[in-house]
Amino acid sequence: MTRIKLNGISTRAPEGWDKKETKEITEIIVKELDDLQNLLYAEGKHSILVIIQGMDGSGKDGVIRNVLGNMNPQGVNVSSFKAPTAEELSHDFLWRIHRHAPLKGMIQVFNRSHYEDILVTRVHKWCSDKMAEKRMKAINDFELLLQEHNNTHILKYYLHISPEEQHERLAERMKDPTKMWKYNERDFEEAKLWDIYMKMYEDCFNHCDSPAWNIIPADQNWYKEYLIASQLRDLLKSLDMQFPGIKK
Amino acid sequence: MTRIKLNGISTRAPEGWDKKETKEITEIIVKELDDLQNLLYAEGKHSILVIIQGMDGSGKDGVIRNVLGNMNPQGVNVSSFKAPTAEELSHDFLWRIHRHAPLKGMIQVFNRSHYEDILVTRVHKWCSDKMAEKRMKAINDFELLLQEHNNTHILKYYLHISPEEQHERLAERMKDPTKMWKYNERDFEEAKLWDIYMKMYEDCFNHCDSPAWNIIPADQNWYKEYLIASQLRDLLKSLDMQFPGIKK
Repeated sequence: MTRIKLNGISTRAPEGWDKKETKEITEIIVKELDDLQNLLYAEGKHSILVIIQGMDGSGKDGVIRNVLGNMNPQGVNVSSFKAPTAEELSHDFLWRIHRHAPLKGMIQVFNRSHYEDILVTRVHKWCSDKMAEKRMKAINDFELLLQEHNNTHILKYYLHISPEEQHERLAERMKDPTKMWKYNERDFEEAKLWDIYMKMYEDCFNHCDSPAWNIIPADQNWYKEYLIASQLRDLLKSLDMQFPGIKK
Repeated sequence: MTRIKLNGISTRAPEGWDKKETKEITEIIVKELDDLQNLLYAEGKHSILVIIQGMDGSGKDGVIRNVLGNMNPQGVNVSSFKAPTAEELSHDFLWRIHRHAPLKGMIQVFNRSHYEDILVTRVHKWCSDKMAEKRMKAINDFELLLQEHNNTHILKYYLHISPEEQHERLAERMKDPTKMWKYNERDFEEAKLWDIYMKMYEDCFNHCDSPAWNIIPADQNWYKEYLIASQLRDLLKSLDMQFPGIKK
């Protein structure tokens, strides 16, 4: 097993990487994605699950808006998982997740996911290490079920930002009148728990790695968007899809 | 009550309407929609329900893709209502619909809707006139509930195409390899029931008119998209929304 250590991974694009050119390439890829998604939907054999995790301010919404949001909304669903409701808490932790598993032909995006049940919950000690271990096993079984029984291809993304970049972004929410509604005092409290969050994330990466996580340098939005768009494009292309003929 | 008669309404843009200019204006409106939707989401006070009905080939998917699909997918949901499942049929006909009512801050799009329960069902005599009358009353009560109890603003669209245009579009599905998967032999059978469909649609328009239906000339996609985009924009602007400040 590869042991992922977050503090050894850069949060930025490689030195000298060309921003302007990258943005142009991303635009082309996003157009390709539109066609590939149409083909995915038409063929109806595969489904895609894109799991997006990251600290507050890491730009989850931006990826969804700029990369995944340019495809046909009839073929792309986004589920945002917030604090569970009373009804959800009366079930196992995967119950509310399973309902949002992608149908064949669809791209499903999880903005946060079942991984919160071994992240925020562990940081705050609502979930013990022993419970977390059991949950990881359940998560692995669940992801296997989707992959083996509904042709679901899973892409897991961790948007990797530096604490400095996060601080800047959270602070901006206090100043920009169009962003104030996103501001939450508690975000700064959570940010203080950075190191323990990183440890819990590493545990996810190292124990729930089928498929493996993609750690995306996310301090620069243009680089993050490029990486995710191109990985999704490569995955879709690899499926060797065909438009079906006329149904008899 | 205004009595809508479909055969008195043109399926095309007014003579001399400029296509190129209209397309340019639509592009600008679609960008405006993106900002307005963000504000709708941020403010979280209103919700929008866009109901799209129309015969096969009238371009429901195109409107969703080109007009509604350019907004942030986290703020726009699309529900496509197909033939009901056994579970759905074991409930009242609005049960499966109500689950998809928009949350505050959201734009919900219905690709077909509860109106099918007084359209296709009546055409095929699965629903009697007497039952249809009761359903219309239930629909009116339901739409009132959404409007009065969750600040839901409802836009109802009928995409009005001519039978000739429909025939052309359905025939294209047989020829274009990227569209064959949409082809369904039964669509041509349904098309033969045109006149009775029109009568049932008129009944919807005339009995379920709070709010009133918008009959959209739909033989030309560019005109249809312009009308719907600008109506949605006007509605959103009329709500006089504000970005909320920092939550205390």
